[in-house]
Amino acid sequence: MNRKLIIRMLGALLLIEAAAMMPALAVSLVYREQDVLQILFSILLVLLAGAGMFFLPKKDRDSHLRLKEGFIITALGWIMLGLFGAVPFMLTGTLPRFEDAFFETVSGLTTTGASVFTQEIFDKTSRGIFFWRATTHWIGGMGVLVLTLALLPKLTGRTSHLVKAESPGPSLSKLVPKTGATAKILYKIYILLSLLEFVTLLICGMSPYDSAVHTMATAGTGGFSRYGDSIAHFNSIPVDVAITVFMFMFGVNFALYYRFLIGERFKAFFRDEEFRWYFIFAVLFIVLVTFINLDFYGGDFLTSLRYGSFQISSIMSTTGFVTFDFNRWPAASHIIIIMAMLIGSCAGSTAGGIKVVRIILLTKLSRRNVRATGQPKKMEVIRLDGRAVEENMLSQIAQFAFMYVCLVIFGAFVMSIGSGYDLITNLSASLTCVSNVGPGLGGVGPVENYAGFTIHAKLAASFLMLFGRLELMPMFILFTRSAWHKY
Amino acid sequence: MNRKLIIRMLGALLLIEAAAMMPALAVSLVYREQDVLQILFSILLVLLAGAGMFFLPKKDRDSHLRLKEGFIITALGWIMLGLFGAVPFMLTGTLPRFEDAFFETVSGLTTTGASVFTQEIFDKTSRGIFFWRATTHWIGGMGVLVLTLALLPKLTGRTSHLVKAESPGPSLSKLVPKTGATAKILYKIYILLSLLEFVTLLICGMSPYDSAVHTMATAGTGGFSRYGDSIAHFNSIPVDVAITVFMFMFGVNFALYYRFLIGERFKAFFRDEEFRWYFIFAVLFIVLVTFINLDFYGGDFLTSLRYGSFQISSIMSTTGFVTFDFNRWPAASHIIIIMAMLIGSCAGSTAGGIKVVRIILLTKLSRRNVRATGQPKKMEVIRLDGRAVEENMLSQIAQFAFMYVCLVIFGAFVMSIGSGYDLITNLSASLTCVSNVGPGLGGVGPVENYAGFTIHAKLAASFLMLFGRLELMPMFILFTRSAWHKY
Repeated sequence: MNRKLIIRMLGALLLIEAAAMMPALAVSLVYREQDVLQILFSILLVLLAGAGMFFLPKKDRDSHLRLKEGFIITALGWIMLGLFGAVPFMLTGTLPRFEDAFFETVSGLTTTGASVFTQEIFDKTSRGIFFWRATTHWIGGMGVLVLTLALLPKLTGRTSHLVKAESPGPSLSKLVPKTGATAKILYKIYILLSLLEFVTLLICGMSPYDSAVHTMATAGTGGFSRYGDSIAHFNSIPVDVAITVFMFMFGVNFALYYRFLIGERFKAFFRDEEFRWYFIFAVLFIVLVTFINLDFYGGDFLTSLRYGSFQISSIMSTTGFVTFDFNRWPAASHIIIIMAMLIGSCAGSTAGGIKVVRIILLTKLSRRNVRATGQPKKMEVIRLDGRAVEENMLSQIAQFAFMYVCLVIFGAFVMSIGSGYDLITNLSASLTCVSNVGPGLGGVGPVENYAGFTIHAKLAASFLMLFGRLELMPMFILFTRSAWHKY
Repeated sequence: MNRKLIIRMLGALLLIEAAAMMPALAVSLVYREQDVLQILFSILLVLLAGAGMFFLPKKDRDSHLRLKEGFIITALGWIMLGLFGAVPFMLTGTLPRFEDAFFETVSGLTTTGASVFTQEIFDKTSRGIFFWRATTHWIGGMGVLVLTLALLPKLTGRTSHLVKAESPGPSLSKLVPKTGATAKILYKIYILLSLLEFVTLLICGMSPYDSAVHTMATAGTGGFSRYGDSIAHFNSIPVDVAITVFMFMFGVNFALYYRFLIGERFKAFFRDEEFRWYFIFAVLFIVLVTFINLDFYGGDFLTSLRYGSFQISSIMSTTGFVTFDFNRWPAASHIIIIMAMLIGSCAGSTAGGIKVVRIILLTKLSRRNVRATGQPKKMEVIRLDGRAVEENMLSQIAQFAFMYVCLVIFGAFVMSIGSGYDLITNLSASLTCVSNVGPGLGGVGPVENYAGFTIHAKLAASFLMLFGRLELMPMFILFTRSAWHKY
């Protein structure tokens, strides 16, 4: 185990986190808010810790990063970012209790968007803190390690391990041979799309501050709003439509935007099998929900379509913004919501869930097995985008889906112990945390919050979000004995 | 496609079904009930149809049964048994509507035990019909095709295909080389255990008629009681304890009883990895539920243990008998119930669910993948009972679990369309049908019934039960185009 390298990497992460707090400080200064000093002090604390870890260990001769170390850095790094990111919430008194501040920060970084903010907290929170809360979404969405590598590509060898551990999806699509360069391109596209949304929201009539906060929350597919009633607050059709489209866009594999930009244009999207199915799922779910809810909205098709498409885009992209309390929809729509939460979006996007590509491959595997039972001698090769997929990968994906469902059920069990909430609240809370969506059903519905959970439920939920964001493996490896062996 | 052979086999199944209705006729005669003629007429109708299909097609030269044909016979056979088994319910006027009678029969045959019987129907139903209802459990539990092969071993070649398609579990454990002989042994053990329970219940103070009906429902792990309040009706601790133990016993792989009988004694059980985990799961769930419900029962440990152990044994063995309305338990217990429904019992038993052996193998697969991510060069072989398991089998099991969960969610969606029930009712109804348990949560809770569902929901539920009982594949194959090709 290369301890020094791990500590240096973790230090680098904290330095990035401290830098990410600066804009919130600036906002606080501009609006002359009372908690400027507390935010400044938080930044200094994180900076000091980061600098200590980064500069104190002597540089190791061995800067070669092993795969397991990559996973361990990722898992430890994200836990640490959650711990230090909680400092501004606690110091400013926004969330004085540790479990609340940690929950909110992890929810932000993992782009879940589940919140312990009650209306009372919404009313008292400063613009600076809201800005930091939204920033956690933005840096967590594309990945903090990816950002580190974009800024410090020479820090260590074999950096692809880190990107692999942090990026969503079963396989890493390298845009260019060097990982550091890939990371830079990803962030450039991310910034470009974010700016595009920022300008669009301004045109739709949002204030610059609101645009910035809600752009960061959309881009990371997070879902923290600065308003207790989320996007419903604006009650504006242009805003609804714009955010519906951008949520969908941030659920798309970023590699496709790269191919779009380097000259493939729109071919890039519909030639991609995962995108096609992501699109089909989204359209199908929107049509179903719109018709199922038609009676509920008194036969008003356009209203049903407006809220249906916003909510499906929000849930599938695992953002979690809300324009309507879907808790009140009929049960059939709730089942669509659960499906959308499980499936999520594309690999290589900022979104959560099992991911469309895994669902495609599992469906193909199932179809093959049904056929093979009839004619045992035929063994088709399963293809994605025309390329054969390894059997080993298929088995891993099937096992991933199994662990995913087990984690959701186990998480719900832990959260339910000693809680006053009913079954559907606990189950949907666990699912929405693992899938990094945010709102669930029942007691964690769109107009509710997580403030009422027990301390152990909040901590469990924080870890469920981390398991989900890092796609299980890095977190599980942290809990194996062999992770801590010298070798 | 060997059509004549398929028709002959289906005819044989109907003949067996007609024979299985005879005891109900006898009961009706003994108690001098009014619907003797209707039951007699039902038997004649099934007999006639069966004889026609069995004797009319000329014997084919090719009596070799292909694997795919085995699956098709199984799937079609079970649907047909459901259709013809519904006749007595309809002719006697117990359930005059087709969808109700079909639902009840399929629920019986698949040993689900979900019922559309309202209290009013319980009050008016004759002993003869109750007996037929319980008989469907008994013949469905060990399998009607297995019974056919036990009685007519020479009917066709390669009979192992049929047993494989009908028997629960990922692989078929042949007790003796010949399938017909294996089928005979299985039924002998089945009869032996059933007699043992019958006598035990008599000793516990049940009437012979009640003992017979509830023995058949336990043996098939079905759960139809002749009383609206199920086993709670007897309000007797000896009855509760006896049925708790027997439900657990019928969830054990019957191969172990065979090994027990041929001289291995109790070693046979605890040397078996699946049994060990089945036992551990059961004990763990009972302990958890007992402690979670302790407050609910006012701190009365023994009461909590009594109802907890009965209900866990009932749900894990997928029987579905009820001594207490577990809808009223805390949410944490509901999550344990959902886990128990998903896991089910051992392969090679009469029970449903994903099966313990599959959960063991998936857990081992997951553990291996977590370890392998750390050290990619090590690739352990996964073992069960010390023997290596093929990679292909592991991939199929993982894919089975995926299809299982998809089917539950999709089934819940179909059932929820246009229904007045809430999310948890639809979800748990679908799960309890696929796992062949019977009672669910919410509107299908232990003291509720399925009478209030729409026609399409009842038909969907009937098919969910068939998919679950036959472990998906035979039913899925029925819906592939290639199943109907000549080859």
